[in-house]
Parts: sequence; C-alpha cells; structure tokens
Amino acid sequence: MYSYKCITAYEGTRYNGWQKQGNTNNTIQGKIEEILSKQLGETIEICGSGRTDAGVHALGQVFHFHCNQELESASFLSAANEHLPKDIRLLSMEECDGRFHARLNAVSKTYQYHIDTSAYGNLFYRNTSHHIAAPLDLDAMKAAAILLTGTHDFKSFCSNKRMKKSSVRTIFDIRIEPDEASQMLDLTFTGNGFLYNMVRILTGTLIEIGLGIRNAEDIPAILEGCDRGLAGHTAPAKGLFLVEVRYE
Amino acid sequence: MYSYKCITAYEGTRYNGWQKQGNTNNTIQGKIEEILSKQLGETIEICGSGRTDAGVHALGQVFHFHCNQELESASFLSAANEHLPKDIRLLSMEECDGRFHARLNAVSKTYQYHIDTSAYGNLFYRNTSHHIAAPLDLDAMKAAAILLTGTHDFKSFCSNKRMKKSSVRTIFDIRIEPDEASQMLDLTFTGNGFLYNMVRILTGTLIEIGLGIRNAEDIPAILEGCDRGLAGHTAPAKGLFLVEVRYE
Repeated sequence: MYSYKCITAYEGTRYNGWQKQGNTNNTIQGKIEEILSKQLGETIEICGSGRTDAGVHALGQVFHFHCNQELESASFLSAANEHLPKDIRLLSMEECDGRFHARLNAVSKTYQYHIDTSAYGNLFYRNTSHHIAAPLDLDAMKAAAILLTGTHDFKSFCSNKRMKKSSVRTIFDIRIEPDEASQMLDLTFTGNGFLYNMVRILTGTLIEIGLGIRNAEDIPAILEGCDRGLAGHTAPAKGLFLVEVRYE
Repeated sequence: MYSYKCITAYEGTRYNGWQKQGNTNNTIQGKIEEILSKQLGETIEICGSGRTDAGVHALGQVFHFHCNQELESASFLSAANEHLPKDIRLLSMEECDGRFHARLNAVSKTYQYHIDTSAYGNLFYRNTSHHIAAPLDLDAMKAAAILLTGTHDFKSFCSNKRMKKSSVRTIFDIRIEPDEASQMLDLTFTGNGFLYNMVRILTGTLIEIGLGIRNAEDIPAILEGCDRGLAGHTAPAKGLFLVEVRYE
C-alpha cells in the first residue's frame, strides 16, 4: 500500500462543492476520484483537508489517498491533468506516510475573500469575487478584524445549528488589503480551523461594518452571545478561496 | 444630435468577435447596440475603434455613437450595465465632438498577450491566456522584439491576403515581462495600428523564437519577404486583450 498527498486548485463555479454526497455526482471530490480511478485502474477514494461549499474555489486544497501501486509524480500529474476538467488542476503529488491524514493533521488554513470594489464590477472576476460598489470603511473593518483575531468561541459565526463539537477556534491573523490597480479588496484569514460557513459569515459581518450598518465595537458582544442571529449575513460563496493548508 | 464616446471591457469567450456581421447576432457590437437601443428608445449604432476577433478580450475598447437625447453619464452607465450580459461592461461615457470617430481618430493602440507558463496551466486564466509549459528563451524573444519595433511593412504578419491598402505600420514598443508570482508572461504591443491578426501572428512568431524553432535574426528577412508564409503561427485568440486606444 502506497500513500500520496496532493495539492489541487479548482474553480468551484460549476460544482456542488468539494464533498461527495449521496446521488449528487457533480462534486470536485467525485470528479477527481472518477478520473484517478480510471487512470490507475483501481478504486481511489480521496480525503480532503475539509469541505468547500458550492461555488467556493481553491488555490491549494490538500487531499491524501492510498493505492496499490507506486506512482511517479510527473507522469501521474500529467495524465491526471489531461483528463480532469479544465477547472480542476492537480498542482503537486508526493508520497507521504501511511498515517498522514489531510484533515486531521492540518494545523492551519488560510482562506481569502475577494471583494471587487470597482464601480461596475470587473467582468474578469465575476465568478471569483463579490462586487460591492458602495464605499467601505477599511479602518472600521480593520478594527473589527483585530477584535476577531485570537481564540474565541465562534458559534455566532457558524451556520451549523446542531454543532455538537467545540466551536472554539483560533484566528491567527486577518489581513484587509486593498489593491488600487485592480480595485480588489482582499480579506485573508489564517487560523487553526474554521467552522461551517465561518469565513463567509466573518466576511459578511466585516462588510456590514465597512458599510456602516454595524460597528466594530459590537464584535465582542456578537462573540459572547454565541448566537448565529447576532452576526452578519453569509457573504456569497463565489468570492471565497481556500488558499493554503499547513501541516507540521 | 448628441455624440458620445464610451470605453467598454469584455471577455470575448462567448462571442463571435466585436463586429456585427450579417446573420450572426452573437457579437459584442450587436449585443451593446441591442441593449442601448432598448434603453434609449431609439436605434443606436455604435462604431468601435476596430474589430476584435472571436475569443479576443478587451479592457479598453472605445466606441462612439450618436443619439437624439442628452445623456447623463452615471445613470446611463448604471442602466446599461444592469442590462448588459455580465461579460460585457461599459466603463465610461462622455459627450464628444460630433466629428469624433473612434476608428479614424485613434492614434495608437496597446494590445497585451498573456502566456501562462505554469506547469499544468492556471485554471483561473484558462479562457484568458495561452498555456505553454515548455521553457521560453526570453532573451531571444526580446532580441526579436527589438527587430520588430519601428516602422515596417508588416504584410508577413497579416492574415488578410487581399489587403489592398498599405500594410506599413509603426510599432512603438514591445515589452516582454514575466511575472514570477503568477507565472504569467505578458507581451505588450503598442503601435499606431495593427493589421488583421497582426498581434497574434507577432506573438506566434515570438513564441516560436522563444521555443528555439526560429531565430531572432530571421526577423528582418521575414519582414522583407512580405509573405505570410514566412512568419510564425497565429497564436490563439483567447490570450489576447485590447488594452487601450489613444486619441490626440
């Protein structure tokens, strides 16, 4: 038995998210498993670092899989990318320890949310950003980002109401960076893990603060309330990218 | 009678090029005329700075049009962008002299060609770049670019065999700029005008020089031969952008 770790990038626009689910075949996991199983002539099941929602993209999603044959990286990647749809690419593959687990061993993840602040929307980013033409108060957003950073119970920022496990997570860093040339505002979140929809709800809340609908000073009360109803809206999936997953 | 000058950006992927032609409705010019005619309640005909081929994109195509009513820029642009497809945007509109002509008055144009040099292709640029994984000799390409710059008869770089008018044009500048972060190689051409398919044939020839199939030193003979058969292939449309059109 051989074990491999892969990094994949995809545009989520056409798919029902990462995770294979019942009858829904049109998932990124399902598509990669289908291609790899054909390519290797054995049933391949892949395990990702975590789900991404329908419409969410990845620059560096990580998965592992086991198979009965030894694989050579360059020829494996060439063959896989030849047969995968153009909106899913495998970027790297390396042999890993048989005990390596893409989800359980992840120690931190970075997500990025792209807000298109141009007047009429940059058409080349229409599937990969969320367009907001109204001016955003970046200072207020940065003040809120500082209050969100650190170890907190993020229950108010989780869509899963029946969450039984701990909803305590640590956000190491939230960066809010406008790019003048592209008129894009990038929000970059790095943390030890993120709850279901957490980055999108954090983004929706930061956007509402940027628009002046909420105040940065409300953040501590939102966190303490542990109630999804207290936080802002869930920002659209299409602006979100899973950028990187780190392991020890 | 009022006259207006507009700047438009579009992704050409879904369209049969800029120019309206006989029964083919699916053109960018045709789509803009349809929307503006409905919006203004009168038949609007627009005149672009030049055609772009099927699959070619624009960041700054310019067109002019005449109409019977006075228009206010912000409300005109908002309404147009609301009704235009998401892959066509109007970026600006201003009143202009009735004698202004987007094609005849253009004094220079800038085109950019995007080559994706990443190993397996950047999926987010799959419709807006040409993927070449093989290494390119940038020094050879730059040497050829210098030989192409200036005033020449570019007949060898024109697809139109029945070209009756002069095929002499002046290229002011060709820049060849790799971007390490994105692994994109951008070729930027600025000139007083370009013949049919000229930028794509220049690019195809530069790519062949970068790959070592041709030598930079062959450029003078290609130019002097005035024969399309002497130059390189026509690079794919999807990598090409009309970036800017300048007027006096």
